[in-house]
Amino acid sequence: MADALTQLKERFGRITDLGRISRVLSWDQQTMMPPAGWRHRGDQLATLQRIHHEELTAPEIGRLLGEIPELDPASDDGAFVRVARRDHEKAVKVPTDLRTEMTRTASEARTIWVKARTESNFELFRPALEQTYDLRSQYIDCFDGVDEPYDILLDDFEPETTTAEVTEVFAELKAELVPLIAELREQEIDDSFLSGTFPIDAQERLAKEVVTLFGFRSDTWRLDPTAHPFASGAGVDDIRITTHYDPETMKSFFSTMHEYGHGLYSHQLPQHLERLPTGGPCSLGIHESQSRMWENLVGRSRPFWDFFYPRAQEAFPQQLGGVDVDRFLTGINRVKPSLIRIKADEVTYGMHVILRFELEQDLIHGRVAVGDLPEVWNERMHEYLAVDVPNDAQGVLQDIHWAQGSIGYFSTYLLGTVMSVQLWEKILEDVPDLEEQIERGEFAALRGWLGEHVHSLGRKFSPQETLRRATGSTIDPKPYLAYLRSKYGAGVAA
Amino acid sequence: MADALTQLKERFGRITDLGRISRVLSWDQQTMMPPAGWRHRGDQLATLQRIHHEELTAPEIGRLLGEIPELDPASDDGAFVRVARRDHEKAVKVPTDLRTEMTRTASEARTIWVKARTESNFELFRPALEQTYDLRSQYIDCFDGVDEPYDILLDDFEPETTTAEVTEVFAELKAELVPLIAELREQEIDDSFLSGTFPIDAQERLAKEVVTLFGFRSDTWRLDPTAHPFASGAGVDDIRITTHYDPETMKSFFSTMHEYGHGLYSHQLPQHLERLPTGGPCSLGIHESQSRMWENLVGRSRPFWDFFYPRAQEAFPQQLGGVDVDRFLTGINRVKPSLIRIKADEVTYGMHVILRFELEQDLIHGRVAVGDLPEVWNERMHEYLAVDVPNDAQGVLQDIHWAQGSIGYFSTYLLGTVMSVQLWEKILEDVPDLEEQIERGEFAALRGWLGEHVHSLGRKFSPQETLRRATGSTIDPKPYLAYLRSKYGAGVAA
Repeated sequence: MADALTQLKERFGRITDLGRISRVLSWDQQTMMPPAGWRHRGDQLATLQRIHHEELTAPEIGRLLGEIPELDPASDDGAFVRVARRDHEKAVKVPTDLRTEMTRTASEARTIWVKARTESNFELFRPALEQTYDLRSQYIDCFDGVDEPYDILLDDFEPETTTAEVTEVFAELKAELVPLIAELREQEIDDSFLSGTFPIDAQERLAKEVVTLFGFRSDTWRLDPTAHPFASGAGVDDIRITTHYDPETMKSFFSTMHEYGHGLYSHQLPQHLERLPTGGPCSLGIHESQSRMWENLVGRSRPFWDFFYPRAQEAFPQQLGGVDVDRFLTGINRVKPSLIRIKADEVTYGMHVILRFELEQDLIHGRVAVGDLPEVWNERMHEYLAVDVPNDAQGVLQDIHWAQGSIGYFSTYLLGTVMSVQLWEKILEDVPDLEEQIERGEFAALRGWLGEHVHSLGRKFSPQETLRRATGSTIDPKPYLAYLRSKYGAGVAA
Repeated sequence: MADALTQLKERFGRITDLGRISRVLSWDQQTMMPPAGWRHRGDQLATLQRIHHEELTAPEIGRLLGEIPELDPASDDGAFVRVARRDHEKAVKVPTDLRTEMTRTASEARTIWVKARTESNFELFRPALEQTYDLRSQYIDCFDGVDEPYDILLDDFEPETTTAEVTEVFAELKAELVPLIAELREQEIDDSFLSGTFPIDAQERLAKEVVTLFGFRSDTWRLDPTAHPFASGAGVDDIRITTHYDPETMKSFFSTMHEYGHGLYSHQLPQHLERLPTGGPCSLGIHESQSRMWENLVGRSRPFWDFFYPRAQEAFPQQLGGVDVDRFLTGINRVKPSLIRIKADEVTYGMHVILRFELEQDLIHGRVAVGDLPEVWNERMHEYLAVDVPNDAQGVLQDIHWAQGSIGYFSTYLLGTVMSVQLWEKILEDVPDLEEQIERGEFAALRGWLGEHVHSLGRKFSPQETLRRATGSTIDPKPYLAYLRSKYGAGVAA
C-alpha cells in the first residue's frame, strides 16, 4: 500500500510541476515575452495542457487509487488521496480532444477579444463567445446526473460549492446592497486629488516599500509591471506579483496590495505538501479572501494610513501635500456607482459580480442568447447601479474572463470578499491589538495568523471546511454587510 | 502514408514545444527567477526532461516511421523523416531512468560547482564530476558497435561528426597556433584604456544601439543582463539574448555582438518548418560560426569601428575620448595568453578549446583520472600557452560545462570559429562591397546572405553538408589560419 501511495505522489508531483510550468509561461507572456512570441506560446501552452490532461487521466492513477485503502480524511495522506481521486475522476470524464479544443479556442478568443474591446465592437467577439459557450455545453454533457449544469462550471473554480449555495449568499447581499448603494450614490465627496500626476518611478518605489513593509523577500518574490495585474508563481519560494502603473492615478498602489495578498497565500502554502495537489491553494474564493483583505481591510483602513500616509505624501507631494489623512481616507473610500468592475469601490463591487454570476447562468440555461448580451448587460447595469453604459468596451467587453473561457469564475470574487470579513473578525478576536500593530507598521502577527489558520491548510479541505476550521463558521454574508454599514452608511442600517 | 507523416509531425511538434518550454524556463532562471526558486525549478526541469524523453521514445513513433516509405532526403519531408528517425533511434537506446539521472545529477553538480569555484576547491567538486563521467560511461554503453566512445558524446552537440574528423582539424590548427602564439606573446601593446570606468547605463545604451543597428526588432527580441551571457528563445519570433555588464570594462559589448549572432540564427530559421526538428539549428558548431562571425569578423574589424567608434567614444568619453580608432583597434585585438577561455583573444582562444577537447578524451579513455585533472590542466596550460595557473578557480573549475554534464561540447566552439571564416570568405565573394556596407553601418545584405545560405537550411542537413552547400567546401582550417596570419602576424607566415 505504501508503494501505491508513493507512486501516486510521484505522479501528482509531475502534474504539479506541469501546472507550475504553465504559470511561469503565463507570467512570462504577460511581463517579459516579446509580443510577437504569442504565436509560439499558444502552441506551447496547448501542448502543456494536453500533456497535463493525459497525465491526470492516466489509467495507472485509477489503478493506484484502487489499491489504497481508506485513510483518515483529515490526515495529510487521506486528504491527498481524496483530492487526487476528485481531480482524476473529474478529468477522466473529459476527452483530451475537448480539453485541448477548449484551450485552443480560449487562446484564439483572447486575441479576438482584445481587438473587439479596442474597437468596442461586441459583434466581432460574438462568434468566439458562442463557440466558448458551445464548448462549455459539451463539457457539461461529459458529466452524468447533473441537476444544475452551472454547478459543473462553478466547481472548477470553487470546488465543492453549489450554485444554490452561492445564490443564497448573493440574494442576501443583493437585498441589502441595492438600497445601500441608492443611499450612498448621492453623497458628494471630493476625491479630485486622486487624479493628476503620479510619477511612475515614485509609484514603483512606493509599491516596493509597501510590499517590503507587509513582508516580501527579494530572494523569493518579484514585483513587475504588466497591463492587467495578477499574481503567479512556481512554488512557495518563487512568488511573482504584478501591478499596473497609471501615471494619472495611484490605483497601482491598491492593486499592489491586492496582489500581495495573493502572493502571501502562495508563499505560505504548506511546504511539506509541495508538489502534491493538497499543497496548492484551496480555491479561488479563499485566494480572493486574502487579496481583498490586504487591499481593503488593511489597505483602505485608518490604522494603516495613520502609519503609511506620510510616505505617500512624500512620494506624491504635488497631489497629496495639501491633503490631510482624513480627506485622503474619505477620498479613497468614496462610493460611486461606475462602469468598470475592477475600478469599483467596496460597496458597489458586489453588484458587478452578481450581474455576471446571473448572466452566466442565463446563458447556460438559454434564457439569454449570446447575441443579446450587450442589451441585457446594459439594462441590468441600469437596474443594479443606475449607470448608463455608453459602449461595449466599458460594458460587456470589459473583462478578459469569458474570452479565456473562464465561465463560472466571477462569483469567487464576491465569495472571497465576504469570507475576508469573516476571517478578519476572527483575527481581531485572536489578535486583539491588531489595529495598534498596523498603526505601528507591524504585520508579522497578521501574516502569522493567516499562515497558521488558512495558508498552511493548503487544499486539504473544501473551501467551506477551510473557512469553518479558521473561523468556526461557513460562509455568512452578515459580517460583511455589517462591515459595509458600519464603514459607509450607519444611517441606512435598521 | 500522408497520414503517418502528419501524425509524426504532430508528435514532433509536441517534442519541439517541450524543448522550447525548457529554454524559456532556463532563460527565466538565469535572468528573472527569484534565487530561492531554484529548488522548484530543478523539479520542473526534471519533469520536463522525463516527459520529453518519453515522448521522443514513444513506440508509436517507431511504428509511424516504419510506415513511411523512402523520400527524397533533400526534400523538407525527407529531411524531417531522416532527422526524426535519428533522434528517435538515438533516444530509445537510453533508458528513461538514466536520462533522468543525468539531468538530476547535472542539476546538483551545478550547485556544487558554484561553491567549489567560489572556494577554488576542486576536491569539493571531484565526486560530482566522477559521477558525471560515470553516468557518461553508462550512456556510451547504451550504444552497440562503438569504435570510439567519445563519438557518442560529440554527436550530441555536433551531429554526424566524428572524433577523428575533429582531431584532424585541430592537429592542423595546433601546429600553426603554437608557434604563432609564441611569436605574438612578446608584443607590447597598450590597451590600458580598456580598463577603468564604463558606466553600466552607457553600456546598456550602446548594447541596444549596436543590436538595433545589426537588426533587432523589439517585438520579437529581448536583451537582458545576466551573470553568464547566453542566447535563447522559444521560436523565430521570440528571441532572447543576454549580456553581462562589468563596470570596469566594455567586454559586454563584444559578448552582446556574439549573442546577437546566435539570436539572428534562431530568428532566421525556416519558419515553414517550425515545430519540426528540421526547423531548429543545425548544430552547436554552425551556431557558433554565427556568433563568432558577428563578434570577431564584424565586431573586431576596421570597417565596423570606422563607422561605430564615434558612438563608443560618446558613450565612454572618459576612457576613449583621447584614444584614436587605430589605437583602439590595436587594443581590442591584442594577443596575450591568459587563463580564462571566455576572455581569450582570437589567436589564443583555439588552444583553450583544444586543451579541453583532449582532456575530455583522456578522461573517457581512462588515461587521466578525474582526481588528477587540476595537475594535468596546469601542465598543459603551461605547455600550450606558457601561463601558470594560480588556482583551480582560474583553471580547471572555470567553465560550467562539465558541471552541467556537457561533455563533448567544447570542440564546437573552435569548429564554429573555423567555419565562420570559411563562410566569411564566401560572403565576400558574393557581396564584394560588404566591407564598404559595414563602413556605412549597413547589415541587411549580410543578414540576408546568412539567412538564405545558412539559417534557412535549419537542421535539414548535417553540419558539414550545410557548410558545403553554403561555401562549396566542408570544414577546412586553412582560411581561418590565413585570416589569423594576415590580421595578427604576417611576419610569422612563410
